[in-house]
Amino acid sequence: MRSERGLLIVLSGPSGVGKGTVRKALFEQEDIHLNYSVSATTRKPREGEVNGVDYFFKTREEFEEMIQNNGLLEWAEFVGNYYGTPVEYVEQTLQQGKDVFLEIEVQGALQVKKAFPEGVFIFLAPPSLSELKSRIVGRGTETEEVIQNRLTIAKEEIDMMDAYDYVVENDEVALACERIKAIVTSEHCRRDRVSKYYKQMTEAE
Amino acid sequence: MRSERGLLIVLSGPSGVGKGTVRKALFEQEDIHLNYSVSATTRKPREGEVNGVDYFFKTREEFEEMIQNNGLLEWAEFVGNYYGTPVEYVEQTLQQGKDVFLEIEVQGALQVKKAFPEGVFIFLAPPSLSELKSRIVGRGTETEEVIQNRLTIAKEEIDMMDAYDYVVENDEVALACERIKAIVTSEHCRRDRVSKYYKQMTEAE
Repeated sequence: MRSERGLLIVLSGPSGVGKGTVRKALFEQEDIHLNYSVSATTRKPREGEVNGVDYFFKTREEFEEMIQNNGLLEWAEFVGNYYGTPVEYVEQTLQQGKDVFLEIEVQGALQVKKAFPEGVFIFLAPPSLSELKSRIVGRGTETEEVIQNRLTIAKEEIDMMDAYDYVVENDEVALACERIKAIVTSEHCRRDRVSKYYKQMTEAE
Repeated sequence: MRSERGLLIVLSGPSGVGKGTVRKALFEQEDIHLNYSVSATTRKPREGEVNGVDYFFKTREEFEEMIQNNGLLEWAEFVGNYYGTPVEYVEQTLQQGKDVFLEIEVQGALQVKKAFPEGVFIFLAPPSLSELKSRIVGRGTETEEVIQNRLTIAKEEIDMMDAYDYVVENDEVALACERIKAIVTSEHCRRDRVSKYYKQMTEAE
């Protein structure tokens, strides 16, 4: 009972929230039926990194050619190196009815959303957000400046969420993984996806 | 990281699909944090049935008074007896931030949806729906009449789904339970629910 096309699952969130850690823990689990989309980059491989597994390692010329040919779903430059998501793997895997998982920066996620609005966008949130309330209530232990500073950051993080479908708190990596798995299962049960599939099936008659 | 108010989860589907079996299996699990809303009825208690556990047993006069006072979220009459969902328990439990689970008929679910459009509506689908395709493909073993009859029923079932948020196939009771649990977890992570909560938290400052 799956839709014919796979789901595109995008995990993103503010830098430092632990996206990479959660993604690794998720793919270490045995009952995962997600396909990780390997990024392309122009940075040099680090010791032990394998081309096609950790990254697709490219020259600047190759990467710029991919940009020119619309070969990237999203890309950005960080400290002199390009990073991006090759569109071909994503497209092919989805067409095979398999789910694709991306773990990318917030700016990249917004680019992907433009190309794949039907994707499932998950915002990984720092636990500090939900701790905020007790901090505010428990005043006296922290200065007004610290609290106001934390509130300003929190408001920015909350504004970032607006483009996403789900918010998963990274309070514990194992819990965050469970929530992401539940979201994937649940999205496969969404009526608009399922009934479209059934309707095609009966109308083919 | 929950919204302040609990979620109303409504399980429904065509008669005979196994709603009661799935609901019982779900509530036998230990990690379930759902509160089952006990129905009211005018039918006589069967051997072993406990008032307030299996049903709230009411006289016709009491039941009709509940109808008059808008005390029921939904109600219907089957073979001379009233059945309905008392609104008070549902409202109080949701206000305590706890999730409420209803298992009701399709007509009742449509009534609940009018009162609680923010509820989570799950349609339990017979496995025969997804088996339909192989039946159609595997023709020759079944007569044209059988197939056309099955298709007519399938189209009615698919039309019923339109008011629901999710479709869970009851191919195996344990799998159906897992999907329902995933939907509940996932709904608690929905950005619109979570960010509203965060916004209230920061704007209270």
